[in-house]
Amino acid sequence: MGVKEFLRMSNGERDTSYAQNSFNRSVISTAKPILEKAIEDLVSEGLPSNVLTIADLGCAFGPNTFTVITTIKRKVEKRCNELGVKQPELQVFLNDLPGNDFNSTFKFFFENYQQLEGERIGEDGKKCFIAGAPGSFYERLFPLNSLHLVHSCYSAHWLSRVPPGLTNEVGIPINKGKIYISNTSPPPVSKAYLEQFQEDFTSFIMLRSKELIPNARMVLILHGRQGGLIEEEKLDSFNVPYYTASCKEIQEVIDKEGSFDTKQLVTFALDIGDKEETNMQVKGDKIAKNIRSVSEPLISHHFGHEIIEPLYEKFTRLVIDHMVKKLPIELVSIAITLQRKGWK
Amino acid sequence: MGVKEFLRMSNGERDTSYAQNSFNRSVISTAKPILEKAIEDLVSEGLPSNVLTIADLGCAFGPNTFTVITTIKRKVEKRCNELGVKQPELQVFLNDLPGNDFNSTFKFFFENYQQLEGERIGEDGKKCFIAGAPGSFYERLFPLNSLHLVHSCYSAHWLSRVPPGLTNEVGIPINKGKIYISNTSPPPVSKAYLEQFQEDFTSFIMLRSKELIPNARMVLILHGRQGGLIEEEKLDSFNVPYYTASCKEIQEVIDKEGSFDTKQLVTFALDIGDKEETNMQVKGDKIAKNIRSVSEPLISHHFGHEIIEPLYEKFTRLVIDHMVKKLPIELVSIAITLQRKGWK
Repeated sequence: MGVKEFLRMSNGERDTSYAQNSFNRSVISTAKPILEKAIEDLVSEGLPSNVLTIADLGCAFGPNTFTVITTIKRKVEKRCNELGVKQPELQVFLNDLPGNDFNSTFKFFFENYQQLEGERIGEDGKKCFIAGAPGSFYERLFPLNSLHLVHSCYSAHWLSRVPPGLTNEVGIPINKGKIYISNTSPPPVSKAYLEQFQEDFTSFIMLRSKELIPNARMVLILHGRQGGLIEEEKLDSFNVPYYTASCKEIQEVIDKEGSFDTKQLVTFALDIGDKEETNMQVKGDKIAKNIRSVSEPLISHHFGHEIIEPLYEKFTRLVIDHMVKKLPIELVSIAITLQRKGWK
Repeated sequence: MGVKEFLRMSNGERDTSYAQNSFNRSVISTAKPILEKAIEDLVSEGLPSNVLTIADLGCAFGPNTFTVITTIKRKVEKRCNELGVKQPELQVFLNDLPGNDFNSTFKFFFENYQQLEGERIGEDGKKCFIAGAPGSFYERLFPLNSLHLVHSCYSAHWLSRVPPGLTNEVGIPINKGKIYISNTSPPPVSKAYLEQFQEDFTSFIMLRSKELIPNARMVLILHGRQGGLIEEEKLDSFNVPYYTASCKEIQEVIDKEGSFDTKQLVTFALDIGDKEETNMQVKGDKIAKNIRSVSEPLISHHFGHEIIEPLYEKFTRLVIDHMVKKLPIELVSIAITLQRKGWK
């Protein structure tokens, strides 16, 4: 995907591809031990320089990426103290599409900087340097051999485009009436989505392999599925350039690309509803708003603003019906820690 | 100056400290050969890695820093081709205060990216990676020993604060009725400004000396004066935390700090009026608007919005009177190329 296409996508539609909502906080919190383990291993192996260069891909607005960077900083400090080695300075790149509101991201970081920095150490005090790196992660973002750690939460499941091949030979959509894969979609639809995921995720892995130094770590958290065929219409299934891969599909791409060893691969399911909330209407509203914050710009771009209100009203009713039947409203996530192999 | 103070300063008052206006274009254009010479020398000495890391301090909105980065990229390409060495990838940090509109800066770069990149070389094509680095250049901005080239145009003459000591022992302003140094200011006023400049510029140089690798270059362009005492009320003299140093004052700070060798020091004066314009009223209006774009936020912060219109009307009349008397309306700039010495 070219820069122009991204600018067009970003124009008035930001937060569509690299989504950020309150649910992500729970995901980041659940995956925290995985990130900490990756840092512990990285620091224990011996750092190659006095600077640890980190990138968070798909950083969005600020609070979630701030939590991630704080986790990294604290863990680096702790592990260096345990080993009795000097703490490196941190160069942190926050990446998102050029249309992301980096002004707000920077403002958030500077307002909370003291909390991030923690105890000031050394003559200069400052140990964590923040930079914004706008661009698509389906292109190169950083110089060759320049990063020690990449983190990306809930970004790499966004595809670079809606898969081609969703129309038949006379241009009629083969997935008519649906906007993703559903139980009434013909088989070529899920094949087209899987192929697009394979192409995009291969590209993502390959680009990062150039930017990461040997032995560097990459921690990815993707929206995924428990396994098997995609056959149910999911509550979140109206996001268009999006794919929920299985562990097997993810592992196949990593192995085929060949630059990384898989150090850890974990699947976890999180309830997207507020467990404290007993009022079904309020609970359903909250879930629908959460999903809407991610999906509305895409839906309204594709189908027009006029369908938005009735669509989300209907969606809220479906969520409540689902809860009344005591069915779980869960999203499955897959967290992977990869280690960059030596140069091929 | 702390981060909070900067955020306060930046709140609704951005572009005050690191100003950007059309006059800066002429300055950048005039100083281009100096920047090119610094790059030529840097590349000729042999690059220490495959990545050249560059920072532009006080980048502001976009077009001027884009011109600077394009100049650097073209010169690196040209010199590498002449020497028959591989072109490095460029990691470019655009710095300004956290309140700067980085969203617009990024948008400008991405809309014009093809022009910056020029001919695509190598398997990846992309060779220039842009990042925004928000923060005050009176604090550390980058990790130790991480930069090869620093450029800063029309930024380092902004002081970190209005000098203290401008009131007498009972709290009465000793510079009453003036907002900078003028011919009726008592001597302690210019002394206070000079001391603040010495403190700030020493701090600027010392911080950069930590961030630059040995032999790295720094090209600074400051608003300066031809020499001698500050004794005339200047047309631009209503900028408050601001100092126009002489070459001697600048050189003294550099020598005393001790981390850098001076490779080049050039003074040049540029007419701030539009030479093509013959209508005095139009010409005067243009000059006044140019100066106003830089100074209005500061003035209105200190003296209130209500004085702005009458002040700039009066200023425009003064400019026109000045031109009618055939007096030149020039600003003096000082360009310096510094080379980082080996570690102390």
